[in-house]
Amino acid sequence: MLDVANGWIDSGDQMTGGAQRHDPREGARAHRLLWLALGAALLAGCANGRTEGPLLIEKQGAFAAGGAIIGDEATSSLHCDHGVVDYEIPPHPRAVNLLMWHSASAGAWKNRWDGGEGYESIFVRRGFPVYIWDGPRVGRANWACVPLSAPVQIGQDQQNFLAWRFGPEYRHWYPGVQFPKDDPEAWNQATRARYQEFDLLPNVELESAAAAKLADRIGPTVAVTNSAGGFRALMAALQSRNIVGIVAYEDVGYVFPKGEGPGGPPGPFGPVEVSTEEFAKLTRIPIQVVWGDHVEESARFKGMFAQSKMFVAAVNRHGGKAQLLVLHDAGLHGNTHLPFADMNNVAVADLMSAFLKANGLDARAPAPR
Amino acid sequence: MLDVANGWIDSGDQMTGGAQRHDPREGARAHRLLWLALGAALLAGCANGRTEGPLLIEKQGAFAAGGAIIGDEATSSLHCDHGVVDYEIPPHPRAVNLLMWHSASAGAWKNRWDGGEGYESIFVRRGFPVYIWDGPRVGRANWACVPLSAPVQIGQDQQNFLAWRFGPEYRHWYPGVQFPKDDPEAWNQATRARYQEFDLLPNVELESAAAAKLADRIGPTVAVTNSAGGFRALMAALQSRNIVGIVAYEDVGYVFPKGEGPGGPPGPFGPVEVSTEEFAKLTRIPIQVVWGDHVEESARFKGMFAQSKMFVAAVNRHGGKAQLLVLHDAGLHGNTHLPFADMNNVAVADLMSAFLKANGLDARAPAPR
Repeated sequence: MLDVANGWIDSGDQMTGGAQRHDPREGARAHRLLWLALGAALLAGCANGRTEGPLLIEKQGAFAAGGAIIGDEATSSLHCDHGVVDYEIPPHPRAVNLLMWHSASAGAWKNRWDGGEGYESIFVRRGFPVYIWDGPRVGRANWACVPLSAPVQIGQDQQNFLAWRFGPEYRHWYPGVQFPKDDPEAWNQATRARYQEFDLLPNVELESAAAAKLADRIGPTVAVTNSAGGFRALMAALQSRNIVGIVAYEDVGYVFPKGEGPGGPPGPFGPVEVSTEEFAKLTRIPIQVVWGDHVEESARFKGMFAQSKMFVAAVNRHGGKAQLLVLHDAGLHGNTHLPFADMNNVAVADLMSAFLKANGLDARAPAPR
Repeated sequence: MLDVANGWIDSGDQMTGGAQRHDPREGARAHRLLWLALGAALLAGCANGRTEGPLLIEKQGAFAAGGAIIGDEATSSLHCDHGVVDYEIPPHPRAVNLLMWHSASAGAWKNRWDGGEGYESIFVRRGFPVYIWDGPRVGRANWACVPLSAPVQIGQDQQNFLAWRFGPEYRHWYPGVQFPKDDPEAWNQATRARYQEFDLLPNVELESAAAAKLADRIGPTVAVTNSAGGFRALMAALQSRNIVGIVAYEDVGYVFPKGEGPGGPPGPFGPVEVSTEEFAKLTRIPIQVVWGDHVEESARFKGMFAQSKMFVAAVNRHGGKAQLLVLHDAGLHGNTHLPFADMNNVAVADLMSAFLKANGLDARAPAPR
């Protein structure tokens, strides 16, 4: 039996939908232009540039990726160990997909802590196809090829609170934290937003392999991750050239070239060491590791923060383009372990849009002919 | 430990986005009318009436409903046994929500079998707020107040195929079945679309109680269910006045007044008997039970089909308004256990829209002032 071990608690460039103007004296020609302009606004501007008003979705759905088949298909079998994505694609989308990958909380991408717009909505508005991932055995992908069991995790509330870095002690909030701390329902929702996560190294490998299959199906993809999802995405990038970038919010597991890591046995939160040749794959894509506030005063995160610096240095030493973004250095304050769900998540998203733009990852797909 | 027992395998009125016309000779007044018409189209018609082109979403997200807290919140606790919904609300929505409730497959509501639009998209286009439910312990709501375990379910592929009534034997399709049977990927996706379901009577009760809490939060709601989800919705309707209707695709569990059921002990697929007073709650809301093809030749479904007729008769005998809809009697052929995901799901949806309209459940919410 496989037991749950939730060690870590996880967990644009703005287009303006320009107001169209017209001159009532111009007559029929103006009418035609107006129609054209409104058509264009519907097709592109309204869909992708606005931060208010309805968002437009060209296609949405869900599907499985990766997985195995066990037993004998002729008589008795089981399709299992696939991952599952929900996706939303806006009209005239950008060419690169965003794969949002929390270890086990789709909701964290779907809402801000107060129920306001989450990263999914924000980036669909900005024109990106957005995929939200439940890796194999997690959430809606829990038809597993092995027996699963999950103990009752009393104490997880307190672990959540600390690991999501809302404050130094349970229900004692950091001053200025980007969380609606005076609303008890917000905390109720936050702590119910997770599900069984299975933080074991074999599961990291299983999830990474399935995500690589997903990327190979959907095409060029930036993995946008939280916590242990970042480690999984690094492992996936070793297995698919379609992982073309990673924005890792508070990644808690890293990959290093042999002999260049912090040492110790590999575990569900790294470190994993690979050959220099394998590691070179991580030097070919832009990687940004993003951290919120109070990291260095947290016993839980201090070591990982240091390790993230080692990782960035290793990537760049081998010719890559990794960077560390500490949000308070960029003028944002009060961010938690999940900056993309924080009250200032639009400002956090603006930094991600800038990163995508700087790395040429925000081009529009060619228009259909 | 709680073991999984997947016994059952689950599992509008069309508004026309009217083409606007204008006369180029009318000048400024025509311009103003044009703007008004286009604004109206954006706000209402485009969002809700079209079956092609982008769909409009005013607000979307996810949240938990119901649940318990165990342990001591001051020191060591766990929020658990909540359900979770994803939701999408179109602009200027209808007043009644649709709660889509498969026992354990969100994907079945999100796609047609070939990946085309599912019920979620179809009914958001038709103007309804749509909620997709993972009940407590299921999918993204599996932080449970009790230990959970799930065995490896080899043979589930074959059970799925038969229970979803794609054909009389595994991979032998019924002629004319509304499934893209020549596409092997469609079957791969279908059988990976489910997840752990926990078909036990205590779980039915837990899920029903949480769904009642959900309805009390979101307001008047029609439960749109599949298979054992129908039984759970009947139980929820006993607990919340905000369940204002039920459309049950192939419900496999029923509630009866004491002494009027088929007999036998209550189980995860019914029958549950309640007092006449309790049962009266089910007579106050419109209920439609819908069946696809090949039901009477299926050993698995024949009995439940008969029981559904007993249920409809019992509701109506007590003054209610329940009805049975056999799709082939309505001119639709080849439907499976999940008609809402079948290739003719728009025609199936049209019948549901007609039912909602006939029962006054499709009014628009008052416009905001």
